[in-house]
Amino acid sequence: MGNAKEVEKLVYKIFLKHGMSSNHSKISAKAIINAELIGAPSHGLARLKMYCDRINKKLINPKPKIKIKKISSSISHVDANNSIGFVAGEVGIKQAIKNAKKTGIGLVGIKNSGHYGLSGYYAEQAVKKNLIAFCFTNAPPAIAPFGARKSLFGTNPVCFGTPTSNKIPFIFDSSVSIINRGKIRVAARNKKKIPEGVALDKYGKPTTDALKALAGVQLPIAGFRGSGFAWMVDILSGVLTGGNHGGKVKDPFDDFSGPQNIGHLFFVLKPNLFIGNYSQRIKENIKRIKRLPKIKGVKEILYPGENKFRRHKKNLKRNIIISKNIRKDIEILNAK
Amino acid sequence: MGNAKEVEKLVYKIFLKHGMSSNHSKISAKAIINAELIGAPSHGLARLKMYCDRINKKLINPKPKIKIKKISSSISHVDANNSIGFVAGEVGIKQAIKNAKKTGIGLVGIKNSGHYGLSGYYAEQAVKKNLIAFCFTNAPPAIAPFGARKSLFGTNPVCFGTPTSNKIPFIFDSSVSIINRGKIRVAARNKKKIPEGVALDKYGKPTTDALKALAGVQLPIAGFRGSGFAWMVDILSGVLTGGNHGGKVKDPFDDFSGPQNIGHLFFVLKPNLFIGNYSQRIKENIKRIKRLPKIKGVKEILYPGENKFRRHKKNLKRNIIISKNIRKDIEILNAK
Repeated sequence: MGNAKEVEKLVYKIFLKHGMSSNHSKISAKAIINAELIGAPSHGLARLKMYCDRINKKLINPKPKIKIKKISSSISHVDANNSIGFVAGEVGIKQAIKNAKKTGIGLVGIKNSGHYGLSGYYAEQAVKKNLIAFCFTNAPPAIAPFGARKSLFGTNPVCFGTPTSNKIPFIFDSSVSIINRGKIRVAARNKKKIPEGVALDKYGKPTTDALKALAGVQLPIAGFRGSGFAWMVDILSGVLTGGNHGGKVKDPFDDFSGPQNIGHLFFVLKPNLFIGNYSQRIKENIKRIKRLPKIKGVKEILYPGENKFRRHKKNLKRNIIISKNIRKDIEILNAK
Repeated sequence: MGNAKEVEKLVYKIFLKHGMSSNHSKISAKAIINAELIGAPSHGLARLKMYCDRINKKLINPKPKIKIKKISSSISHVDANNSIGFVAGEVGIKQAIKNAKKTGIGLVGIKNSGHYGLSGYYAEQAVKKNLIAFCFTNAPPAIAPFGARKSLFGTNPVCFGTPTSNKIPFIFDSSVSIINRGKIRVAARNKKKIPEGVALDKYGKPTTDALKALAGVQLPIAGFRGSGFAWMVDILSGVLTGGNHGGKVKDPFDDFSGPQNIGHLFFVLKPNLFIGNYSQRIKENIKRIKRLPKIKGVKEILYPGENKFRRHKKNLKRNIIISKNIRKDIEILNAK
């Protein structure tokens, strides 16, 4: 269907047709194409039909009245009015950046949002303004709390970004699930198996069948630690902000009983708050680590975000690879 | 040597004898005994001799002039002047609590500190004042960055605490190493083996020998993800605050070439910033999770901090168990 620019235009048009404003369509199309470009297609075009379905069913509000409440010069609370997650995320991170530029810290809680794609996409916006950022979001049940045999936590990523003094930002964006739920979904769509040891079926038995894994439980990284991280993220993005939490975030693909009301929390700060030479210090930090002796077969020690950056650059030059199923979805959505 | 109160008094006396003020001795003795009580002896009396050795060698300053610099009403920077880590931690968390009570957020960076024991101990202080807290600290090299065969990151814990609406705080305090370095040290002291798959020797081969593991590399949780968490914590607590970073934090037990200059970062916030009923919401969150069906053999789903709290309560009533080696150390230190 073409290169990034062409496909982005197509997605933009599809959102417009579904009643979203030009600005909101632009924001959302850009976020979706970004996921494709950095090599995270599970958060890209594979979700377009889902977003449109939820607009059609009035679960995503295509014309939201987003309210930003000022708590202090550093703190804001956003009620996203069930906007598409991308727009809530964009409004939220912009506000956090604004607050941080003013006072050194920006803290923004967002409620009544939906799936906003990749946390790293928002962290990167802050990093590009020379700020450090944390982004937290919860998600529909996928991971069982440690000791439970039913999933309740989402894959709840912890995301941290910092300027590096070079053009490639440090973006650590780690789901606390061993495998990304989107990847299982893509495997299910393409009738492929998933690796061993990453998921259980609904009876609590290990499985490599993607469909059975979707109906079952994903395993957290590092047992009780991964479970603890997921719980922490649920508290920060859900309990604290006014979003849904404790297993109440609806699966956007198959639960149409109401809006998701996902919560996000953005925490942004100036890197030179305490010392004047952060840029030099982070450069030195990265240099020291890259200089370490490597394991056999490893050419270069990469910091989080480098691989994504390189894939993005490479993918910009070529056509976006779209599976047959998704291509069909797009054609139908565009013909509307 | 007696119960918690008695041993705490003994440790207090030992610090006094080493030139620390009564107040600083009290703070440090309390933190050490707390580690014993919650069942983390690797961060307790096992380190007492090390702290005293470093005072004797003038690497820990027993009479520090700690400077607190106000950056804004929310942000402070502490120069701990090579104090014992416990005192720097105590000063830092108290300042963060003060700032958060005033403005909703408290952010405190600390430099020129040393090993401060357990992050959870500081998070708990904030939680007891009905605040949410993040505590980050770096540590001497123990973990190899993903792709490297030499350790550089410390076990760099991520620690998060929140009030729960009941008397047991939620304290998630997770090292990013599969096994705690202190535990390996205790195993080495007691000539015990460590589990398989948690560490490599200095040639990069798996080992269950505690001494070989100390000379080698600990493995991070979840491969590149654990490595990313460790890197994040090194940046937040070291690069950002002015502390040592990138593998420059000295091992307190065997590197006497200078002070550690560890950095810490505390981030504290009011739970009712965005919504008015946090206490009710967190109660509901925990209730929902505890109600889930359990895996066979699991009686109760616990949140992070519950086990520690119960051990603390139980251990308060009985004598502290001290190994022969450590008992001898204490006797020598006390006879000084």
